[in-house]
Amino acid sequence: MSKDDRGSWQLRVPTPFDLNVTALAGGVGAARFLRGLVRVIDPARLCVIVNTGDDEEFFGLHVSPDLDTITYTLAGAIDQNKGWGLAQETFRCLEALGRYYPETWFGLGDADLATHLFRTQQLRHGKSLSEVTATLARTWGVQSTLLPMSNNPVRTVVHTDAGALPFQEYFVKGRGEGQVERVEFRGLSSAFPTPGVCEAIATADLLILPPSNPIVSIGPILALPGVREALRATPAPVVAVSPLIAGKPVKGPADRLLSGLGIEVSVAGVAGLYQDFLDVFVIDTQDASQRGRLEQQGLTVIATDTIMSDMEKSLALAQVVVEHGQKKRRTRTE
Amino acid sequence: MSKDDRGSWQLRVPTPFDLNVTALAGGVGAARFLRGLVRVIDPARLCVIVNTGDDEEFFGLHVSPDLDTITYTLAGAIDQNKGWGLAQETFRCLEALGRYYPETWFGLGDADLATHLFRTQQLRHGKSLSEVTATLARTWGVQSTLLPMSNNPVRTVVHTDAGALPFQEYFVKGRGEGQVERVEFRGLSSAFPTPGVCEAIATADLLILPPSNPIVSIGPILALPGVREALRATPAPVVAVSPLIAGKPVKGPADRLLSGLGIEVSVAGVAGLYQDFLDVFVIDTQDASQRGRLEQQGLTVIATDTIMSDMEKSLALAQVVVEHGQKKRRTRTE
Repeated sequence: MSKDDRGSWQLRVPTPFDLNVTALAGGVGAARFLRGLVRVIDPARLCVIVNTGDDEEFFGLHVSPDLDTITYTLAGAIDQNKGWGLAQETFRCLEALGRYYPETWFGLGDADLATHLFRTQQLRHGKSLSEVTATLARTWGVQSTLLPMSNNPVRTVVHTDAGALPFQEYFVKGRGEGQVERVEFRGLSSAFPTPGVCEAIATADLLILPPSNPIVSIGPILALPGVREALRATPAPVVAVSPLIAGKPVKGPADRLLSGLGIEVSVAGVAGLYQDFLDVFVIDTQDASQRGRLEQQGLTVIATDTIMSDMEKSLALAQVVVEHGQKKRRTRTE
Repeated sequence: MSKDDRGSWQLRVPTPFDLNVTALAGGVGAARFLRGLVRVIDPARLCVIVNTGDDEEFFGLHVSPDLDTITYTLAGAIDQNKGWGLAQETFRCLEALGRYYPETWFGLGDADLATHLFRTQQLRHGKSLSEVTATLARTWGVQSTLLPMSNNPVRTVVHTDAGALPFQEYFVKGRGEGQVERVEFRGLSSAFPTPGVCEAIATADLLILPPSNPIVSIGPILALPGVREALRATPAPVVAVSPLIAGKPVKGPADRLLSGLGIEVSVAGVAGLYQDFLDVFVIDTQDASQRGRLEQQGLTVIATDTIMSDMEKSLALAQVVVEHGQKKRRTRTE
């Protein structure tokens, strides 16, 4: 293992798996998985369908947190400690915005702002979010295809006992406090998957759901017309990695969202949300005792270390996922 | 004289002149004069009509260089050395924009960007440029009234032997090179002075043209319908400070613009542009030999040190201008 110019770990993998892979992804957890995945498969044969329900306008700029986290991570430019934003970032502009705006709680770094300025200007010039996303990925040297789940605005709104809050306000400003009552995907009824999303699911040799919040990261993608159906219909196996370890998410409010919605806060609870299309469920060794219950749901279960604290662990997890995924022959019938 | 918290010079002036003053202003030279002026008159009784012909859109943001230079200067926040931009500025975002845009030659600092983001968002929300300007001035604690010359877009385009260039491109990117053939104020035919501009001229006790480029800073203001007429009609004296010293501007391309347009590059050339409304012309002692010629044009001429290298000199010049201005009884008839 050696460190490349950008300071990210280049691991020498003898023979990459020969597969077209499509992943459905949220932010930090998914990005940490994907940085390993692109080292066990050909990155150019990976398509990532990314949640945009967390997108928000700040200071007149269109911010796509999950898209940026994945782009920056695959580019080796992410702040490794935080998991989001650019490495060596400064926050001078955000500080100055405090002079004009009452609230500056969303961490927009100075270099990161360039991305939001560019995206916003391109959108105003009539480009679609998927076109801008492709340009951004290319600019950062990302070889994989990144598809925003939809070119139509879908906004995740978390209804709590303290009122309805757009996701960033609930999670970043409000720190995920308040009793969750329901989650709404505003705009969903007039939204469609980005062209290519259902095709990328239908034609992949392997489908992966990296560890992402099942309610607010994977949920909006699955709610788009045709996506869930495509996952059910594809002949390729679907592998998910649990975002919960011993009933807790590594990051984010998945536990509070699940329990608020009356869903068991466990690997079984998560599996239940995917039961109509999931084939293989990768859980942490800490949850190995749940294996029997999951197998009863008809799943192939793999228990392994899923905490991706460094690149080596991301790579090892990706290897397990792809290895077991490609072995799996799908037997389910609609 | 003592330095205040913001590092700017607070000069103790015994009795401020008791006057309503309206100034027509461009960028750096005017700002340096105005920082002195607001210490010899009540700042709340100063109205500054500011050129917006240099405004430009960069990265989707509306940038008003002259308005910002004057706001930041009167707020004591300007970068004193450069004369524009904020003190202690960083340029991280601009550097990062270089990843997405081929050109990043206009110096937008990280803290400065906050101003452009705010202005742009307010304009998109339907506010006029004059409303946003007032909000920005108030936010920065500027007590004087700042009026953009027009709420309608007017763009100064410099036609050179190398083609037609928007002013910032001619001056900042192109460093004022190329033979000037003519200057166009694009949009002028459908532009009007901001409400209050002609009133501020008509009701002032003293009108001042601080040292500003007569072609591209004062020129666009004078070209707006009614402005020149108001300057001719007002009973109050009009005092201008020459932007040329011994045939050279302190900063900027005034000499190249004047000569390109076939105007004598001298205090007499500048005076000629204002002859229909000017009463008192303040020139540098270096140009004292021109006094006779100017007096023949019917002007009261004051020769003094006009190089405002520090606050003390700005204040001294402002004092001379106001003192001689208020002594002057206007005798001209239309």
